[in-house]
Formats: sequence, structure tokens, C-alpha cells
Amino acid sequence: WRIVEKNGVEMLERAYEFPDFASALLFTERVGRLAEQEKHHPSLLTEWGKVTVWWWTHKIHGLHRNDFIMAAKTDSLYQPILKDYVES
Amino acid sequence: WRIVEKNGVEMLERAYEFPDFASALLFTERVGRLAEQEKHHPSLLTEWGKVTVWWWTHKIHGLHRNDFIMAAKTDSLYQPILKDYVES
Repeated sequence: WRIVEKNGVEMLERAYEFPDFASALLFTERVGRLAEQEKHHPSLLTEWGKVTVWWWTHKIHGLHRNDFIMAAKTDSLYQPILKDYVES
Repeated sequence: WRIVEKNGVEMLERAYEFPDFASALLFTERVGRLAEQEKHHPSLLTEWGKVTVWWWTHKIHGLHRNDFIMAAKTDSLYQPILKDYVES
């Protein structure tokens, strides 16, 4: 994760790599479901073989402790998808 | 849809609005499934209440007739999601 500034708002950004479009989309879906559960929503750019995630706290237009927690939870969703693909 | 240039590549771009994150994510999932069916893959930016879609043909680094067809098919996925939300 790195801290970036977009439109004057500090955000956490990380890009994840995948072997194809379907696995990237699956990751987006899982991060999206996590976001709904936690009622905290990132921006997600889904591309062939790549998903970029941005976390920030809309209310304060910047970073809050919760964003770092969400970033760690996002990381935890990545390895299981890669593992499923290696095994299948 | 409008034609934009990103990194020297012409693309079709359209932003769709939604009432919340869940409906935006659902649209991303449906466009993603269409992409897999057609073996032609867009970039999709999923945000709270908004999805931006870019279509282009990777092989020719620009626009092909098929991108315009995919854009029309993407449009056809939008109204059903809004309708489901109004009715529920």
C-alpha cells in the first residue's frame, strides 16, 4: 500500500495482479462484499489481470485508522483467489 | 459514450450512476460476466453510486466495431438494475 493524493484527498492505494480477467473480477466482488459488510466503500478499478483499490474516509476527506484496517482485510482476500487458481 | 484517449489509446468511455455501492457493484459484476462471455474485456471503475466503463481493442490499441457493440450491450444491462432497485 502507498499513500496517494487524488483531488486533494489522501488515499491508500494498492494494485493486485491476477492471471486473467475472471480472477480479477472475483477479487473485486469479494472486496465489494467486504465493503458492504463493513459499510465502508473503496474505489475499485478492475482490468484484465489487475485490480487497483483505493481506501479513504469520505466523511473526513482523508485517511482514518479504519482505512488501514480495511487495507489489511483486503490483503487477506488476495491469496485465497490466487491459490484457487493455481489448484484448479 | 464518448471517445477518450488514455496513454495514446482511443477508448469508449461512459459513466453510469447508481443509488448506492451495492447496485454499482452488481452492474460491474454483470458487465464483467458479459465480458467473459464475449471474450472481450473492458476496464471498470466501481465507486459508491458510480461505475465508469472503458471499451477498446487491446490487439489494435484502439477502437474496433466490436467495441461499439459491447458499449450497446453494456447499456442494455443498466436499466434492469435501476428498475430492480426502484421496485424493491
